[in-house]
Amino acid sequence: MSEKIYKIVNARLLLNHEIVENEYLWFQHGKIIHPQNLFFDAHRDADEIIDAKGLIVAPGFIDTQINGGYGIDFADNEGSVEKIQQDINTVAKGLLQYGCTAFCPTVVSSAPAVYSKVLPLLNQRKGSVQGGAEILGAHIEGPFISVEKKGAHDQTVFRNAKNGISDFDDAYGPELKKGSKAISIMTVAPEIDGVADCIPDLVKRGITVAMGHTACRIAQAEEAVKQGATSITHLFNAMQAFHHRDPGLVGVLGAADLPIPSSQIGHPASSLTSPSRNKPDPRPFYGIICDGVHVHPNSVRIAYYSHPNGAVLVTDALSAMGLPKGTYTLGGREVEVDESGACYVKGTSTLAGCTVTIDDCVRNFQRFTNCSQVEAIEAATLHPARLLGIEDRKGTLNVNADADFVFLDDSTGELRVKRVFVAGEEIALVNGLV
Amino acid sequence: MSEKIYKIVNARLLLNHEIVENEYLWFQHGKIIHPQNLFFDAHRDADEIIDAKGLIVAPGFIDTQINGGYGIDFADNEGSVEKIQQDINTVAKGLLQYGCTAFCPTVVSSAPAVYSKVLPLLNQRKGSVQGGAEILGAHIEGPFISVEKKGAHDQTVFRNAKNGISDFDDAYGPELKKGSKAISIMTVAPEIDGVADCIPDLVKRGITVAMGHTACRIAQAEEAVKQGATSITHLFNAMQAFHHRDPGLVGVLGAADLPIPSSQIGHPASSLTSPSRNKPDPRPFYGIICDGVHVHPNSVRIAYYSHPNGAVLVTDALSAMGLPKGTYTLGGREVEVDESGACYVKGTSTLAGCTVTIDDCVRNFQRFTNCSQVEAIEAATLHPARLLGIEDRKGTLNVNADADFVFLDDSTGELRVKRVFVAGEEIALVNGLV
Repeated sequence: MSEKIYKIVNARLLLNHEIVENEYLWFQHGKIIHPQNLFFDAHRDADEIIDAKGLIVAPGFIDTQINGGYGIDFADNEGSVEKIQQDINTVAKGLLQYGCTAFCPTVVSSAPAVYSKVLPLLNQRKGSVQGGAEILGAHIEGPFISVEKKGAHDQTVFRNAKNGISDFDDAYGPELKKGSKAISIMTVAPEIDGVADCIPDLVKRGITVAMGHTACRIAQAEEAVKQGATSITHLFNAMQAFHHRDPGLVGVLGAADLPIPSSQIGHPASSLTSPSRNKPDPRPFYGIICDGVHVHPNSVRIAYYSHPNGAVLVTDALSAMGLPKGTYTLGGREVEVDESGACYVKGTSTLAGCTVTIDDCVRNFQRFTNCSQVEAIEAATLHPARLLGIEDRKGTLNVNADADFVFLDDSTGELRVKRVFVAGEEIALVNGLV
Repeated sequence: MSEKIYKIVNARLLLNHEIVENEYLWFQHGKIIHPQNLFFDAHRDADEIIDAKGLIVAPGFIDTQINGGYGIDFADNEGSVEKIQQDINTVAKGLLQYGCTAFCPTVVSSAPAVYSKVLPLLNQRKGSVQGGAEILGAHIEGPFISVEKKGAHDQTVFRNAKNGISDFDDAYGPELKKGSKAISIMTVAPEIDGVADCIPDLVKRGITVAMGHTACRIAQAEEAVKQGATSITHLFNAMQAFHHRDPGLVGVLGAADLPIPSSQIGHPASSLTSPSRNKPDPRPFYGIICDGVHVHPNSVRIAYYSHPNGAVLVTDALSAMGLPKGTYTLGGREVEVDESGACYVKGTSTLAGCTVTIDDCVRNFQRFTNCSQVEAIEAATLHPARLLGIEDRKGTLNVNADADFVFLDDSTGELRVKRVFVAGEEIALVNGLV
C-alpha cells in the first residue's frame, strides 16, 4: 500500500448524490483522506497528481450476486484448494476490468461438503491490483429455497429449517458462525419450514438476509421483512408472478405498513414513495438483473418508479461470463449460452444466470429507467454498500472510504469505464475489453 | 333548469389541482359561470347563497364502469322497454346518493339482440334530480375479448373481427354508428383477430378504446396504444399476471417509448414518471377497482407510484350493489355476494364485479396510496373526464363545466359525502345511506 499522497484533479466527483466540479479527491494508504489534516497536521501536499481530464470519478462498482466467470464457477469444488484459490483470483482480477472493485462471490445451492470446501476460500479479503476486486464475503443462494422456484438450482440438496438455526449450521458448516466475515448475504425462501423464525439469528451474526427463489405470498414476505430480511434476490426472477389478489414478493415494493427502521444502516434511504419521507425506507432493497433478458425493461421501470432507492444492480453472472456461445457448468449442471449471451439450463427455457457485466447493467438501468447518472451509478455503488451495511468504507467517495474508483466517460451519452483504481492503485485495462 | 344565480360560500374549492379557500363558486342554468360577466354585463348579484360551512367542494364523481345496482343489470333485456328505462332511472338516481353524478352504464358481453334493445336506452343523457346521474354513453365490455380471461362473461357470445369494423357493426348494431353519443368506452382484447386494426376506426367515431379481459403480451398492448387505445380496463383483473420476461398489459405502466400525444385531450397529464415532463403522458389511463378485494392494496400502490395521473377509480359495481348477501344475476349468469360484499360467479372463485360504491373507492384509494386528497378526488373526477375527452364540461369546477358537485367532509380524516348537486340542483340524501 503506497505511502504516497495522491490528488485527483479535473474530475467531476460523485459526492453526496451530486456530480460536483472544482473539487479534488485525495487518497493515501488505499483510503480517501481529508486534505485539511495534511495541511494543518503534516504540512504536506500531494506527492502525485492524477488528471481525470474531465471524466466522472465515482466509487468502484459492487456486485452482490455473481456466480463466476471466465469458465469458473464459485460452487465448483473439483480440484485442489490451490486450484480453486487461483480460479477465484482469476475472476476477482477479471472483474476489475469492468469497474467492479468489490463483490459477493455467489454459491448456488450445494451439499455441505461443497460449502465446507469453498466457503473458507471466499471470506472477506481486501482488494488489490494483484488479487483483484475485494471479496465482501460469499452470497449463499439456497439451499433453503423453494422447489417451485428452483431456477437452475439442484433441488436434491434443498432443505428446510424445522430444527431452527441448527439446520443452517448443518447445511453450511462452521463458516456460518463467522458471520459476515464469511457470509455477506444469504438468499432464502421465507415460506420454507422454519426459515422465517431463523432470520433474527442470521441477522445477529451480521448476515444480510435476502428473499428469493420463493413462491411466498405477500403476507409471508412482509413477515420476513419484519423478522429482519432486507433484500429481494433478482426481483421478478424465480418468484410468483404478480397476481392481482396476491402480488407475492414483488408486492413488497408497494408495502406501506412495515415498521420504520431505527437506523439507516442496512436500509434504503427515503424517497418520494417511502412510507415516511424523512426516515429510512422499511422496504427491502432488490437486486435486479438489467441485461434486458431476465427482466423486461418495462418491469425495471415499474420497480424503479415504485422504489427508486431500493435498486441494487447485480449481474448474476455465471461461469460463462467473458466466454463465447457454448455449454458450461453451473453448480454441477450444464447450461447453454446462446448468441445473445443469455444462458439456459441445457435443453430447457429456464434462465440460469447471465453473462452481462456490471458496467453494462449501469448503462442499461439508466437507459431503461431514464434515471439520472447519479442514480444509475448509486444503484451499483451506494445501494449495495448500504445493503451490506458497509457504506462507511464502500460505495461513496467520502473520507475514510476505500480508494476504489472508476473514471467514467459520458461523452457519448452513456457511462463508459475508462480507468479503474482498487485500494488506491490503478489497474491496467486490457485494450478493447471495456 | 333554474334561472337563479347561485353562489357557494365558505367552501374549500378544488380548483386547478389545489384546495383553495376564500373563493366563491357561481352557477346558473346548471353550469358554473364566471361572476365577472354578471357584475359587468348584467349588474347582478347572486339570487341565492349556499353556505358550504367549510366543507370541500369538488366536482361530482364519475364512474366509467358500472354494470348496475339495486338488483338491476344493464345487460338485462327482459321485460318491456318502459320497464328497462325505469330500471336505468332507478340506478341513475341511486348513484347520486354516493356523489356519483355521471356514469357509463356498462354492458357485459352480449348477443346482438341484447345490444339492439338496451343500447338505445343508454345513450348520453343529461343529469337531473328527477332522472338521476348523467349517462355518458354505454361502456361495452366485450364480446371482442379473450376466452382465457373471460371472468364472469359468457364466452358463447365472444367473437373476433376478422372482417374488420363490419364485425363490430354486426355485433352491436346501428348504435355503434352514433359513436360517443351512444358508446363512451369499448373494452377489447387487442390480441383477438382483427381487433387492433379496427381501433383507429373506433376512435374516429369518438369511442374511447380500452384494453381488458385480455391475455395480450406487452408488445400487443403497446401496439394497441399506438393504434389509439387510451385505457386499461380494471387493471390487474382479467389480464396476464406480471411475468418477469413479459409483463403483459400491466407492463404498459412502465412503457417509455410510446409516441407522445399531440394533444392533452384523452390522455393523462404528465407526472414525474412520464416519458416527457411537459407533454401529455402517452401511457393509457387505467381503471382500477379499489374495493380491497379485486386488487391487493400493495398493487394499487405500485400502479399509483408508476403512473399517478393514469388512475381512474371504477366500481365495476353489479346488480347486487345496494343489496345484501345473496344470489343475483349479471348478464344472465348467477353470481353470489358474500358477507364482505365480494361477488363470485356462483359456485366458483371467479370474481364478478363488486358492490363497492364510488365514494368508498375514493377513500380506499387515498388510504391505500397515501396520496393527497386532491389526487384521490381527481382519480374519480378529472381523470375519468379526461379519459372520455369531456374535461371541458365534467371533472372540474372550471367555468362552463356542469354544476355537478359533491360537498365532502374531511374532519374525520377521510372524505365523506355530505351534499350532492347535479346540474345545479341539490338532491335529497337518504339518511344513513352515505
